[in-house]
Amino acid sequence: MAHLPNPSGFPGIGGLFAYRPETARPLRELAQQLLRGASSLSPGERELIATFVSSKNACRYCTRSHAAVARKLLSPEVVDAVLADAETAPIAPKLRALLAIANAVRGPVGAVPDGLMSAARDLGATDLELHDTVLVAAAFCMFNRYVDGLGADTPDDGPGYEQGAVRLTEQGYVPK
Amino acid sequence: MAHLPNPSGFPGIGGLFAYRPETARPLRELAQQLLRGASSLSPGERELIATFVSSKNACRYCTRSHAAVARKLLSPEVVDAVLADAETAPIAPKLRALLAIANAVRGPVGAVPDGLMSAARDLGATDLELHDTVLVAAAFCMFNRYVDGLGADTPDDGPGYEQGAVRLTEQGYVPK
Repeated sequence: MAHLPNPSGFPGIGGLFAYRPETARPLRELAQQLLRGASSLSPGERELIATFVSSKNACRYCTRSHAAVARKLLSPEVVDAVLADAETAPIAPKLRALLAIANAVRGPVGAVPDGLMSAARDLGATDLELHDTVLVAAAFCMFNRYVDGLGADTPDDGPGYEQGAVRLTEQGYVPK
Repeated sequence: MAHLPNPSGFPGIGGLFAYRPETARPLRELAQQLLRGASSLSPGERELIATFVSSKNACRYCTRSHAAVARKLLSPEVVDAVLADAETAPIAPKLRALLAIANAVRGPVGAVPDGLMSAARDLGATDLELHDTVLVAAAFCMFNRYVDGLGADTPDDGPGYEQGAVRLTEQGYVPK
């Protein structure tokens, strides 16, 4: 990677996890809880929020990694449509409203505007779903900055992301 | 808090941790590792980086909480000087260079400029210190957005922050 040695040769956050296993452990556990833990938002919906935030933040590694997972858990068409334009993508209105909240969170630090929260509530979002949306979006503001800040290797789109998605879909974020 | 019920009555991230203990656990463990785990940056230096990033992000709760800790671990004068102007504060040149890196991380997502990394290296920063600086800064881009995004209660400066700092200094971030 650009700023640190990468003896593991792993791309993206995998190289950082191998470089600093002490911080990798709680980061992996956080990702597991945020994206796979019990929530009325499905893992696919949460992976889509992670993908969308990473895309808006222009973090190519996180976008590609989580898009590959979301494509498996939702559908390739839905994920591609959200990445192209979340306003017109064929998703439920509640999920579109949660993506708008996520986009507000990834901007400058500050309270999510009342109107975005009430719009999501009017479409059926619960307190817990609002909480989880904000925290997933905030967490990817960390992961994106960690990966890109240190210049972690970002392979071109290719089979590596698909292989990673199989692993993350089947095993989650905490290795056995 | 503005956007969620807060039955615990705890301010700031404490209310969010009580609201959602499932995500609180890995978040607390991450804070413990980042700010208290083994590193050649002292806990005081890492708390100062966290305070500085939170201040630049205008997150009053995180700034006040971590400034209170940093004041205990370093000195009130140093922390106040960094909050007023990190360029002229009486800190070691290496730490000033690490704060400049932290400030770059908290901006738009992207690689920290080579010049900031090489300036810190020239002043003695190791790879691990550069890593830990970037990750602490990135993590507070998450914590700040989580706390302020959901409108968590932010008390005025007062004895609560001092009491919190005593607890965080003596016990750390993971309750026994």
